[in-house]
Amino acid sequence: MADSADSRDRMTLILFSGEMDKAMAAFTLANTAASMGKRVTIFFTFWGINAIRKDMPTAGRGWMRWMLGRMNRGGSRNLPLSRFNMLGLGPWMMSKLMRESRVTPLEESIQTAKEMGVHLVACTMSMGVMGIAKEHLIPEVEDFAGAAAYLGDASQSGINLFI
Amino acid sequence: MADSADSRDRMTLILFSGEMDKAMAAFTLANTAASMGKRVTIFFTFWGINAIRKDMPTAGRGWMRWMLGRMNRGGSRNLPLSRFNMLGLGPWMMSKLMRESRVTPLEESIQTAKEMGVHLVACTMSMGVMGIAKEHLIPEVEDFAGAAAYLGDASQSGINLFI
Amino acid sequence: MADSADSRDRMTLILFSGEMDKAMAAFTLANTAASMGKRVTIFFTFWGINAIRKDMPTAGRGWMRWMLGRMNRGGSRNLPLSRFNMLGLGPWMMSKLMRESRVTPLEESIQTAKEMGVHLVACTMSMGVMGIAKEHLIPEVEDFAGAAAYLGDASQSGINLFI
Repeated sequence: MADSADSRDRMTLILFSGEMDKAMAAFTLANTAASMGKRVTIFFTFWGINAIRKDMPTAGRGWMRWMLGRMNRGGSRNLPLSRFNMLGLGPWMMSKLMRESRVTPLEESIQTAKEMGVHLVACTMSMGVMGIAKEHLIPEVEDFAGAAAYLGDASQSGINLFI
Repeated sequence: MADSADSRDRMTLILFSGEMDKAMAAFTLANTAASMGKRVTIFFTFWGINAIRKDMPTAGRGWMRWMLGRMNRGGSRNLPLSRFNMLGLGPWMMSKLMRESRVTPLEESIQTAKEMGVHLVACTMSMGVMGIAKEHLIPEVEDFAGAAAYLGDASQSGINLFI
Repeated sequence: MADSADSRDRMTLILFSGEMDKAMAAFTLANTAASMGKRVTIFFTFWGINAIRKDMPTAGRGWMRWMLGRMNRGGSRNLPLSRFNMLGLGPWMMSKLMRESRVTPLEESIQTAKEMGVHLVACTMSMGVMGIAKEHLIPEVEDFAGAAAYLGDASQSGINLFI
């Protein structure tokens, strides 16, 4: 009974996509929910890990991870758009339009999330596959876990989204 | 307790994607749920707003919004496919295949949604960023709101999806 | 009350996307949840049906379905990546990286899902539109249903995701 009431106050998001617009959607929902008093967790997996990577190339074992680390650039300022990317012109334009509309840019949204207690969790399986180590991630990420931990959180959340 | 029972009867969808196939999925789920007696809300954000735009260019302040208004064509009949778009041939073929299989086309699905009481809400933040005003949207959209309103609805819904 | 407790133990996923990385995410979540004792259903719709297709061309009525059957290759080993597909090099590299990290490949994950009792359901509407018959699907798929059946399952699930 108490549990059921609690679940309304929790939201757990999976950020699977590595695009700036989807990361913006995730952080906008997360920060708004946190400001409403909800407990929020974002679980970053696959390309979504790019949103919480430092702007530096990664290099796991082998030439394929080396290549992936160079192609698949991370860093909240380097994410492409899911549409109209136009070789990087799209994200620049979108950032400018957002600034004009006084929408917080992604870097700041991550900071705000951290300050508001949004729980940022990186998927250890994806990190392993892509050759991404803890030192490649921004310090705001405080937790590293797998699918079982995600499912534990999601089971207690009234809102679960896969972005 | 009563609340908990109610939440089973509500579904809240976010349509983030601007593709015809994803919009079809959203409206098929929404209309089926409405026909089963559920209260349904679709919250249109980012590219998803294209599904509820009139077939006309938008023009907010500045050349970037002007350009975006031309490139990012709206209108339920102009949406691309998420795969095999083939410069517009894909959506035409898909519409034809759907008609043959007696699947309701998107324009009609929006009408049906409206008639069945599905609540269509446009995200005001996305409208601001993209320079889309109320008059650019189809009249079926009756509500304009932000992330907080979405989260209020989602908290009371048993089914929440991000499409 | 009992119902409310039950819903925590159920997860219902929609796999809409036809990409290998998203199919991997769906099966990783499904199999982990099943190993935790949850009842899991995956509902395959639109391009997601490719993950459960045999590696053979389909051929519904008319040249458009014939063409779609050839272009839109199915089979868990033929799925593209959502990013860095590089004409098929990407999925090969990703499979190799996954094998090195001891992540189960997709074909095996489907087998495991079946063994753990994950319920695999193909969307009949999508099958009709794309000209896909039951014999085009792998034998692990035991159920064929529409949106109403999905919504029935989702209403009773604590975790609902659209992938």
